[in-house]
Amino acid sequence: MSKKGLILIVSGPSGCGKGTVLHEVLGSREDVYYSISATTRAPRPGEENGVHYHFITKEDFEKLIAEDAMLEHAEYCGNYYGTPKQPILDHYAAGDVVILEIEVQGAKQVMEKLPQAVSLFIAPPDLEVLEHRLRKRGTEEEETIQKRLAQAKEELTHLSDYDYVIVNAALEDAVDDLQAILRAERCRTEKCCK
Amino acid sequence: MSKKGLILIVSGPSGCGKGTVLHEVLGSREDVYYSISATTRAPRPGEENGVHYHFITKEDFEKLIAEDAMLEHAEYCGNYYGTPKQPILDHYAAGDVVILEIEVQGAKQVMEKLPQAVSLFIAPPDLEVLEHRLRKRGTEEEETIQKRLAQAKEELTHLSDYDYVIVNAALEDAVDDLQAILRAERCRTEKCCK
Repeated sequence: MSKKGLILIVSGPSGCGKGTVLHEVLGSREDVYYSISATTRAPRPGEENGVHYHFITKEDFEKLIAEDAMLEHAEYCGNYYGTPKQPILDHYAAGDVVILEIEVQGAKQVMEKLPQAVSLFIAPPDLEVLEHRLRKRGTEEEETIQKRLAQAKEELTHLSDYDYVIVNAALEDAVDDLQAILRAERCRTEKCCK
Repeated sequence: MSKKGLILIVSGPSGCGKGTVLHEVLGSREDVYYSISATTRAPRPGEENGVHYHFITKEDFEKLIAEDAMLEHAEYCGNYYGTPKQPILDHYAAGDVVILEIEVQGAKQVMEKLPQAVSLFIAPPDLEVLEHRLRKRGTEEEETIQKRLAQAKEELTHLSDYDYVIVNAALEDAVDDLQAILRAERCRTEKCCK
């Protein structure tokens, strides 16, 4: 049995600690590929092409859609955002752990197009904890915090679309959960024997 | 989310190290229940009722079959062997890890009757290793060894019926795999949120 790749779709409300958990588990591994989105919006100061986004023209983006080369895409404020398919399939074939950090609507599209993907929702223990975490950042206005809480509430209704849920009450436990999921998935018979 | 039980069906050829792996992982845990088979055969010296088997009469066994109180059963050398359903459901409802060590045909019947069960096949790295392990025991005749090898070969063809496979090449890795599977299964959304 050769080492097989793993595509992991990760969603979770802003403030749930997704980034921290992923970084703790995968930060030191070399067989990890983070999917980079493509967008037609202009780069902001400090953003690098191929690192933060693939910055491409509207024409190129629409061509990729027409060629079915996008796993999912959405339009937001007049700009396209999407997930290019090919790098994901290439890294998966090479045996890497491919991470797609993506919101619930996009995640649903990817689950349909890549049934071999494993999906994970990282949830806050409850909405009060989430609100506390968002406030602690101290960078957001009240209006933004309220908007994020409403969005989190909506996102949580999609939880059962996912294969796994990690309730991020304590970072150490959440990290152990993700380690376990990655290890267990490598033992799935449909991953290695079917 | 309350703590949910887990029913784990475990199969694997004689000599694959099932017992050792299970003992290493579950030996010290208190929330584990090993399913005890029922049989109509007479107890052998040293065998205790309710520990090694539930020793029951043929009439009682047939009554349990008629009442659909057996998850699976088979006849062997004129005696019945089977898995009583109720203790498994009770311990599962209480949040325990319920272990059913069972051969491939019985496992298949249990998978059908208990779709919530998780199934695991413990496999030897290859048949030469298995042969070596069986010989090392030094307790079996050549004929028995050949019979077990033939049976192992047959059992391995059922591997893809199982959710997980652990290839027991090194005990420590196999133990980590099983720990990971148990932990990951507790994060399954269908276990906690559906």
